[in-house]
Amino acid sequence: MSIDRIVAAADRIAGHALRTPLLNAPLLDEAAGRRVFVKAECLQRTGSFKYRGARSALSALPRNARERGVLAFSSGNHAQGVACAAREMGIPAVIVMPSDAPALKIANTRAYGADVVLYDRATEDRDAIGTTLADERGLALVKPFDNEDVIAGQGTCGLEIAEQASGEGIGKADVLVPCGGGGLSSGIALALEARAPHLRVRPVEPDGFDDVARSLIAGAPQANARMAGSICDAIVTPAPGQLTFPILKRLCGPGVAVPDEDALRAVAAAFTRLRIVLEPGGAVALAAALFHREDDRDVIVVASGGNVDTTVFRDTLNRLGKTD
Amino acid sequence: MSIDRIVAAADRIAGHALRTPLLNAPLLDEAAGRRVFVKAECLQRTGSFKYRGARSALSALPRNARERGVLAFSSGNHAQGVACAAREMGIPAVIVMPSDAPALKIANTRAYGADVVLYDRATEDRDAIGTTLADERGLALVKPFDNEDVIAGQGTCGLEIAEQASGEGIGKADVLVPCGGGGLSSGIALALEARAPHLRVRPVEPDGFDDVARSLIAGAPQANARMAGSICDAIVTPAPGQLTFPILKRLCGPGVAVPDEDALRAVAAAFTRLRIVLEPGGAVALAAALFHREDDRDVIVVASGGNVDTTVFRDTLNRLGKTD
Repeated sequence: MSIDRIVAAADRIAGHALRTPLLNAPLLDEAAGRRVFVKAECLQRTGSFKYRGARSALSALPRNARERGVLAFSSGNHAQGVACAAREMGIPAVIVMPSDAPALKIANTRAYGADVVLYDRATEDRDAIGTTLADERGLALVKPFDNEDVIAGQGTCGLEIAEQASGEGIGKADVLVPCGGGGLSSGIALALEARAPHLRVRPVEPDGFDDVARSLIAGAPQANARMAGSICDAIVTPAPGQLTFPILKRLCGPGVAVPDEDALRAVAAAFTRLRIVLEPGGAVALAAALFHREDDRDVIVVASGGNVDTTVFRDTLNRLGKTD
Repeated sequence: MSIDRIVAAADRIAGHALRTPLLNAPLLDEAAGRRVFVKAECLQRTGSFKYRGARSALSALPRNARERGVLAFSSGNHAQGVACAAREMGIPAVIVMPSDAPALKIANTRAYGADVVLYDRATEDRDAIGTTLADERGLALVKPFDNEDVIAGQGTCGLEIAEQASGEGIGKADVLVPCGGGGLSSGIALALEARAPHLRVRPVEPDGFDDVARSLIAGAPQANARMAGSICDAIVTPAPGQLTFPILKRLCGPGVAVPDEDALRAVAAAFTRLRIVLEPGGAVALAAALFHREDDRDVIVVASGGNVDTTVFRDTLNRLGKTD
């Protein structure tokens, strides 16, 4: 995939997606022992970077496909991105979500006007439900990461990072990116390859769900042993994508895995030091920067999403929020 | 004061102050019944717009004054702005703060390296303490709003609003601004007068501390009856400023006053819908947009600060945060 495809996606989503700020806070730098720059995708429309890929993919669909509508499977952020972009573009959207997805994400997806179909992960076959719906209505499936227009859309975040890092005078640095299926990491890596080759993407995952880190070591896709059990629901996927893994393998540095507890500590730090709201899965890269430092070079961190249930956030502040 | 002074301030603070995003969320618009655009100054360096004015004022000081150092009185956000800008510029800073200022604000001001002098509002004379310190050390007093370079610095926020509103295609609209002494409101009003005269500033204050609203009606400065008793500590001041009031009188629309409870509801809405952290005083303009709607025109809201104590934020989510 070429940089032209990312630039074309940037043109299509311009005026819709937000150019999110690259945040920095002196007291966060002190806590981290180095300069930490945070690309705040939690401020993106719908609360996560997923809107970029969704708007990119939907705007690349031919007219007749748009008229019939789209289908997506998602436990949350992709669901909201597709639902919001679809509504803005007048495209019917059906979103198949597990019934145990975070309540806020289900509620928001419905609020964007999508037809939300819930299924029971334990007893029902998601793909069968989706295939039946897609066949009956002729819906186009919008995959969450194994779709070139989605990857190109996420890559627009990388174009912005390249420009903003230059503006901040950041030299050789790692770009830590929360990683599920690898759409965001691969899109950013492609953008940086062309625009800022001194910046290197490193995928960050939760402990126990580090399929990408292990795949990068093995040189071939490795699966996770399980699909549930992390608070970082947004970035738990079965295995790296077929389109994304070759890109990650070619361009990324070693993966990093962080414990759930560190993700929650990063949520608390983002509250206190940056005044942004992160969900645990969106905070793993910040956690790596703060609590798994390997050197004292500048680091760029993507804060990929902020759609946290209120109770989880409240409990995190109760346990980990400093009151001084 | 001319627009040139604001443009000069923008040049001096460029590369230091953040160009904060103008946020918008479809589900917030639905809740408000109109389009609401939020200028997120809570994301500004030090967590409030005050950094703009502080950096502007300090960078306008002559070299010998910088060498001797600066003094500021503040219960919090001006303190942090001056302390942070001073440290960055290598200027010694003494900040006189009431001992009952929010703990987070005192801790942060110290963390920026300022010499924090606490006093008891009930028994000690702030001005006497400050005058003694200033005389002994030859410190330059940086007033929080009655200072032209501070007003010009806050005006840089207005330059950005003018550009961003144009980018969003916003026509005739009100710009609701949290208002204490009027530095931010007057600075923005001056910038908009020159750059976007179809946008009109309206100051927003807490109920019971609406000195500016009453002064605008009376056509002359009116004082507040008391100085404590609102959760919106950041924007409680005795009376409009001597420099700011004539500007407000010439350029602003009627003031708005909102109950503390609505400010807290706006804090909760900003958490859920925008994924930003606001302090109550920084949320009064959003509260006015959400809960005191006068028409269905687009509205721009300044979210002026996010330095909220963790316990206040937690309690607000406990009471008012929706969990769906």
